[in-house]
Amino acid sequence: LQQADFDQLKFLLNHFHPGQLADILEAMPPKERKQLWDLIPESQGADTLTLLHDEVRNSLIVEMPTEELVAATEQMNVSDLADMIEELPERIRQSIEENLSDEIREHLETNLSFEEGTAGRLMSPDVITVRNDVTLEVVLRYLQLHEDLPDYTDGLMVIDRSGLYQGKLLLNKVLTHDKTSLVKEVMNSQHPAILATTDEHEVAHFFEQFHFVSAAVVDENNYLLGRIKMDDVICILRAKSDHALMGRDGLHEEEDLFAPVISSAKRRTVWLGINLVTAFLAAWVIGIFADTLDKIVALAVLMPIVASMGGIAGSQTLTLTIRGLALDQITNGNSGWLARKEVLIGIISGLLWALVVAGMVWLWFQDTGISLVIAAAIVINLVAAAAAGIAIPLILQRLNIDPALSGAVILTTVTDVVGFMSFLGLATYYLL
Amino acid sequence: LQQADFDQLKFLLNHFHPGQLADILEAMPPKERKQLWDLIPESQGADTLTLLHDEVRNSLIVEMPTEELVAATEQMNVSDLADMIEELPERIRQSIEENLSDEIREHLETNLSFEEGTAGRLMSPDVITVRNDVTLEVVLRYLQLHEDLPDYTDGLMVIDRSGLYQGKLLLNKVLTHDKTSLVKEVMNSQHPAILATTDEHEVAHFFEQFHFVSAAVVDENNYLLGRIKMDDVICILRAKSDHALMGRDGLHEEEDLFAPVISSAKRRTVWLGINLVTAFLAAWVIGIFADTLDKIVALAVLMPIVASMGGIAGSQTLTLTIRGLALDQITNGNSGWLARKEVLIGIISGLLWALVVAGMVWLWFQDTGISLVIAAAIVINLVAAAAAGIAIPLILQRLNIDPALSGAVILTTVTDVVGFMSFLGLATYYLL
Repeated sequence: LQQADFDQLKFLLNHFHPGQLADILEAMPPKERKQLWDLIPESQGADTLTLLHDEVRNSLIVEMPTEELVAATEQMNVSDLADMIEELPERIRQSIEENLSDEIREHLETNLSFEEGTAGRLMSPDVITVRNDVTLEVVLRYLQLHEDLPDYTDGLMVIDRSGLYQGKLLLNKVLTHDKTSLVKEVMNSQHPAILATTDEHEVAHFFEQFHFVSAAVVDENNYLLGRIKMDDVICILRAKSDHALMGRDGLHEEEDLFAPVISSAKRRTVWLGINLVTAFLAAWVIGIFADTLDKIVALAVLMPIVASMGGIAGSQTLTLTIRGLALDQITNGNSGWLARKEVLIGIISGLLWALVVAGMVWLWFQDTGISLVIAAAIVINLVAAAAAGIAIPLILQRLNIDPALSGAVILTTVTDVVGFMSFLGLATYYLL
Repeated sequence: LQQADFDQLKFLLNHFHPGQLADILEAMPPKERKQLWDLIPESQGADTLTLLHDEVRNSLIVEMPTEELVAATEQMNVSDLADMIEELPERIRQSIEENLSDEIREHLETNLSFEEGTAGRLMSPDVITVRNDVTLEVVLRYLQLHEDLPDYTDGLMVIDRSGLYQGKLLLNKVLTHDKTSLVKEVMNSQHPAILATTDEHEVAHFFEQFHFVSAAVVDENNYLLGRIKMDDVICILRAKSDHALMGRDGLHEEEDLFAPVISSAKRRTVWLGINLVTAFLAAWVIGIFADTLDKIVALAVLMPIVASMGGIAGSQTLTLTIRGLALDQITNGNSGWLARKEVLIGIISGLLWALVVAGMVWLWFQDTGISLVIAAAIVINLVAAAAAGIAIPLILQRLNIDPALSGAVILTTVTDVVGFMSFLGLATYYLL
């Protein structure tokens, strides 16, 4: 690139929305990403920074001069700042905090006083509040003092004299009601507030159920602390679905596709190590039957079929169960019904595919004994797979272990061990 | 349950939100679900029906008397009605359509004229429009004629005399600007409208990037047809993530956890059949080396380790690639860089785990030959897995086949075949 091209690129970047810039940065290898970042105008920098995934953002922050970082944080919103600042070295953190206005520093400390993943950490202080004993006319005049209202402002938070949350005054209502009405007559006092210690997944559920655009966050005394907006909820939903998708492969949901080779390899290799234990366990089971395999080599040829069918069937049940748990669809009351249903499906498709596999094996080896043994092993493994697919996530959940992370490994262990054990065991007993 | 309990339950149900009722219904076995549904008061029925997953909804609809269904559709919104009506038998469809008001029937026909999965099908007609040449004072008076504004109304759509979309007048602005200003001075003329033929995933991207709460939908002549709301977008995002999660196991994203056994078994068994082909292919590869296995039984014991390590490593790359494609992060420009990166990770973790496995195998069998062969096979399979994990989704995408559905099956085929082939092939060549 020539200097002229650079200038032109810089000019073009001015016309991008920070959301677009973040998307582009995330789709770039580290070197090019750094180069583009340096070209992004300061006015777009802060917004772009907050819209990046944690990992990508951190990779850019560590190389930024402190002054530049401090300047960028001036325009950041408090909840993003809280998430970011926690991961920074103490020295940089102090420079940033010193530079903030007293008001923002106070808000930042409030957010940081709540744990990550709670409503208190997510909330923003950009609430417009009104008192419950004034008329709509006063509210209208007060609003006209504002140049503009913050994003996702669908209503004003109503508080009493001491700052306690009373309800929400929807902008709708301000516009459609008589101006002489009092706020307390028009406001929605049923509009629930979210306790600051509420888990973020519950917050998301809340928003979805009640069609909120924004909601108030309060402390245990009902004192108004801030608000949570629709876009925070979309972030939560996105992180949750990424977690479910990536967790199965031992990947972190923030995994940067373009991270440097070494850091990617490090994390993924841990997962391979965990799975190696499973693989050796399966090998050990096969090893028990080494004599049998030595005598009937066809068993060695066919044994992966039994294990693989069990793995696939179990994985279907596992995915459905994990999703059902995540959506709170599975309770003590219906888990028995579900287990019976899944086992019944296991029996039906086990019998069906046992027939098909036995037929194909007979055509291949013309050996009735082996055909019958593989048929029996497939029925056993598919039923075990169904039972494991529903039991494993339920047990893990009760032990407070995330089933999305470890469920699949444990399931494969079960279906491999049961598959090899039943196939080779039955063969040893009946065919030798 | 006694009659008195029933009455009490019916009374309690009145206090639930339709979103909560839908959640409860989805978490029930078919029989209980039907019983509860019959108890839900008519006033909640329509909203609850639209909030259910397709499959659950259809299971209830088929058993509803036509009059009851017709009554429920009266309160339904047009886009939900369009989705539902398409799947109903012609006879019921006609009874419903005859019962609708002319206005709603016209809106329904407009929605149905667009394909499923487009903005035109998603939009609702509940738009409040204002002309661009009136003052805010007129707008305020007009709004005061409304009892309430529709959900997610963050602004009014501005049109000219002939109904062409001009921009959006945010409620914010109505409240904060001088009442004598003209709409065209205050409205946001940059607020883009969505073309009715736009794909729903693009719509979701749009909303996220620009922080919309609602947006106008127009036809190719810029004529205003309706609007799309935030909650539609959440549904799109949810369906997309369910598709990615469930597609891997051959499950449909609308799969009902509590569907009857037979219909669940039918769909899942198809997936097992597809995977059986893969399993037989792997078995066939092993069969080629039956003589080798007959001579060295340790190979039969160890061969699943090679295949499984490849499967796990490949699956990590596959998931990252599919997600990268879904987020539009992978382009022609960077796919080469990514492929090199993934293969490099494959080499590094291949070498590392080859060492570990070789050491463990040596401790187990005290055979240097087998240890060296398994080490080489693991390196080969992990590199092949990385290459396949990135190449398969890219190729499928180019062929317009959804990689989330078929990627994992094809990948397992590759890692099984390469794993068995390299391990048993090298053993045949060097150890016999």
